[in-house]
Amino acid sequence: MVDIIHRIGIRAPVSKVYAALSTVQGVAGWWTKETTGESRSGGTIKVLFRSPTGDELGKMDIDVLRLDPNKEVRWRFRSGPAEWVGTDVTFNLSRDGDQTLILFGHRNWREAVEFTAHCSMKWATFLLSLRELVETGQGKPSPDDLKIDNLY
Amino acid sequence: MVDIIHRIGIRAPVSKVYAALSTVQGVAGWWTKETTGESRSGGTIKVLFRSPTGDELGKMDIDVLRLDPNKEVRWRFRSGPAEWVGTDVTFNLSRDGDQTLILFGHRNWREAVEFTAHCSMKWATFLLSLRELVETGQGKPSPDDLKIDNLY
Repeated sequence: MVDIIHRIGIRAPVSKVYAALSTVQGVAGWWTKETTGESRSGGTIKVLFRSPTGDELGKMDIDVLRLDPNKEVRWRFRSGPAEWVGTDVTFNLSRDGDQTLILFGHRNWREAVEFTAHCSMKWATFLLSLRELVETGQGKPSPDDLKIDNLY
Repeated sequence: MVDIIHRIGIRAPVSKVYAALSTVQGVAGWWTKETTGESRSGGTIKVLFRSPTGDELGKMDIDVLRLDPNKEVRWRFRSGPAEWVGTDVTFNLSRDGDQTLILFGHRNWREAVEFTAHCSMKWATFLLSLRELVETGQGKPSPDDLKIDNLY
């Protein structure tokens, strides 16, 4: 199995970072503005992404597998890009000094393909967007996300 | 084995991207200002990184394994962080429309540890720095690099 893992520090209380990961409103502030659904444990979040010209790029249904307040958020992709279905995303939170640390994982890809490499860069820029949201109040969710390559 | 892979598109000729990856002056413009050594195939590049306060964070000796003009640059870490020694970095270049695409890999980590996740984020931000350098003439090499977490 192939895993994408990243790590970022955010200068904010862990509760503020957890809120941005565990609520529909939070996720809409850093990942994609078009986030709907129910973010409770056992619920399903729906996300939709657009190209710079507003065309639909893709959408996903995400099962919320675990919400451990101020410690962990775990998702599983139920529908979306074929490569993503059945994969898990986890956000593990901890504290060091004035930073809340996120250990991010998008795990259990069946193989490492160019789309994996694209998604790894996109996750990195969305984690930077999350940091901006939490530290400044303004993230860069889709469709205002940083475009990375010819897959957007 | 564990691999970090990323993908980025740069709006510039492939020759300009290749120059930024295959010369000491190029690497000094996006990775670390303190880049020295010989960037020819078979040569050794030396890089040194500093913390925000100017303390030495670490340094590495890198063997240049392969230079395939406008196609591929391959490095192997001879010394540096224990986790990096013996690992390879590759930059594979291709074109699509107005973009030069880089498929980046830092492969053959013995295990996925928190430092791997840190390095994955750092590589993503250094690839953004590389894009800035090539597209605008000004990158963000160490010590002016974007700090990511408590490991810098």
